[in-house]
Amino acid sequence: MSVLKNDLILRTLRGEKTERIPVWMMRQAGRYLPQYMELRNKYSFFERCQTPDLACQITLQPVDIIGVDAAILFSDILVVPQAMGLEVQLIESKGPILPHPIHSANDLTRIRVPNVHETLGYVFDAIKLIKKELNGRVPLIGFAGAPWTLLCYMVQGKGSKTFDEAKSFCFQQPALAHQLLQMITDTTIAYLKEQVVAGADTVQIFDSWGGLLSKADFETISLPYIQQIVAAIKPYAPVIVFAKGAWYSLNEMAQTGAAALGIDWCTPPEMARKFAGNTVVLQGNFDPAKLLSPIPIIQTEVKAMLQAFGGQHHIANLGHGILPNVPVSHAKAFVDTVKEWQPNV
Amino acid sequence: MSVLKNDLILRTLRGEKTERIPVWMMRQAGRYLPQYMELRNKYSFFERCQTPDLACQITLQPVDIIGVDAAILFSDILVVPQAMGLEVQLIESKGPILPHPIHSANDLTRIRVPNVHETLGYVFDAIKLIKKELNGRVPLIGFAGAPWTLLCYMVQGKGSKTFDEAKSFCFQQPALAHQLLQMITDTTIAYLKEQVVAGADTVQIFDSWGGLLSKADFETISLPYIQQIVAAIKPYAPVIVFAKGAWYSLNEMAQTGAAALGIDWCTPPEMARKFAGNTVVLQGNFDPAKLLSPIPIIQTEVKAMLQAFGGQHHIANLGHGILPNVPVSHAKAFVDTVKEWQPNV
Repeated sequence: MSVLKNDLILRTLRGEKTERIPVWMMRQAGRYLPQYMELRNKYSFFERCQTPDLACQITLQPVDIIGVDAAILFSDILVVPQAMGLEVQLIESKGPILPHPIHSANDLTRIRVPNVHETLGYVFDAIKLIKKELNGRVPLIGFAGAPWTLLCYMVQGKGSKTFDEAKSFCFQQPALAHQLLQMITDTTIAYLKEQVVAGADTVQIFDSWGGLLSKADFETISLPYIQQIVAAIKPYAPVIVFAKGAWYSLNEMAQTGAAALGIDWCTPPEMARKFAGNTVVLQGNFDPAKLLSPIPIIQTEVKAMLQAFGGQHHIANLGHGILPNVPVSHAKAFVDTVKEWQPNV
Repeated sequence: MSVLKNDLILRTLRGEKTERIPVWMMRQAGRYLPQYMELRNKYSFFERCQTPDLACQITLQPVDIIGVDAAILFSDILVVPQAMGLEVQLIESKGPILPHPIHSANDLTRIRVPNVHETLGYVFDAIKLIKKELNGRVPLIGFAGAPWTLLCYMVQGKGSKTFDEAKSFCFQQPALAHQLLQMITDTTIAYLKEQVVAGADTVQIFDSWGGLLSKADFETISLPYIQQIVAAIKPYAPVIVFAKGAWYSLNEMAQTGAAALGIDWCTPPEMARKFAGNTVVLQGNFDPAKLLSPIPIIQTEVKAMLQAFGGQHHIANLGHGILPNVPVSHAKAFVDTVKEWQPNV
């Protein structure tokens, strides 16, 4: 394994002060890139995801084109439910469909905690290839969905604004819900460990629907499982936890031992720091829709965001995934502005 | 006009301590009620909304069936864009469609600040009829959408998870956006004033998409217009402001002079009180999905919510609209639990 030429993000995750703020973007390997759209038009989602060479090409695109300080594995959080035995359909522009969702104890017998080598080996193969092709240019981020967010899809069977079926499943059948959450957690721990073994330098847990829960419910249904995952992975690689919208539990999330916490754009940086305490690294939080602004506005607002985070213990990122209609030059303006910025002391 | 027999909510809005916490539910006149579904199956949305007798029947249903402490006018926030000259289609189960959205200065010439008597007279007729039929049983709440939330639909042309077109309109063409926001504001002020003249005892401003904006953007794009509306209506009736998800600006919202602030279920009551200060009344914030829990759980959790709000300067409500699949008995359990509750001092 070659030595990393750019390890800014890893040093930041270790709590070190760095010469500048590292930057990457959620969904940086995605639909705003014409080079990605070419491959998307040729290959189905699962072809792109399960063919290490395609996953590798896509993962590297934003490193080459945009100049981010980290690559993030091209994959999807729903490969885990699929590996557990649930059918997952990912039809472009339609969102995911799980035609046989989990509603009962009987449904739980249809899924299992799988052997991740047998079911997700293609991910580890992709990681090995990506690391080889990156050749030490930047670190590689692995990832998985948080158990609550995966439960949302496994119970609701599709995307939703409220995921009320998933929530009522947890409220009406809590024992069953916790059994399912534990199965997802056990699978995720094995999955992320092997991502690290294959070469991932850090991993991010995406709790995209954490913020649909009240604080009390988040800390019952979601956080304990995130905590288990952080505890299991932390000895091997630093863990970034991003629970979108769950600002109210930043303090509790910081106590999981996560190296960094993702912050969405609706949580002001100063408030995020106050809630999360002074130790943990914060990652975020530019409004993805603001990348549709004219470039001079992007530059001004990115600098304001960097200043608000205080110029250290910060990884610059968006507050959620980049939108498909963002011009590449705007994404690049975001990254370049971070790279050129120095704090006003 | 008959004297109100139950003015709990109005006394609470005036800052008085009351013998118990008043309670109503957002979308209480809605799809979970079989009596509503009967009328919904017979009449289109605009027939129900524009026929005072139907709007009156629907408005009164939850007062009779569930026993809430206030009626809220049956209508929709999109009657305002319609009155301004924009076509609005409300097709059941499909969400609103505005086929000719606003994208340019030229589009703005297609709309106007209308004479509300000419365009929205049916609403004032409905209010007069409702007040007569209520016969003083409970107060009537009027309402309107916040200018930012109406802009979302007027620019995006339909519902959206992110309303990124509406946001980029504001970011790319701020002068035009502010011109549109001012037109909506002027219309809304005239509209709400006439609702009060017709008999509404209080009005609520719904900023359903406030929480999609960062704090800085909320305070540029949304709050100044809410502020104008509150200032204009406050001399005539107390104003409730509900900006879903905009917890980060509760302090600034309290300073508008609103009598009460709506709180969603993701903002813990104690934090809401801390952010909003001690003067303003808080309204909320039961998770609508939690009404799908078994009744004993609903009762326990409602009591915990009431206790967390401290037993005064509080109007019990959901944190967002009631879901269509909630059993009527569960909605009634919510209301009854509030009515029977006394604080642990």
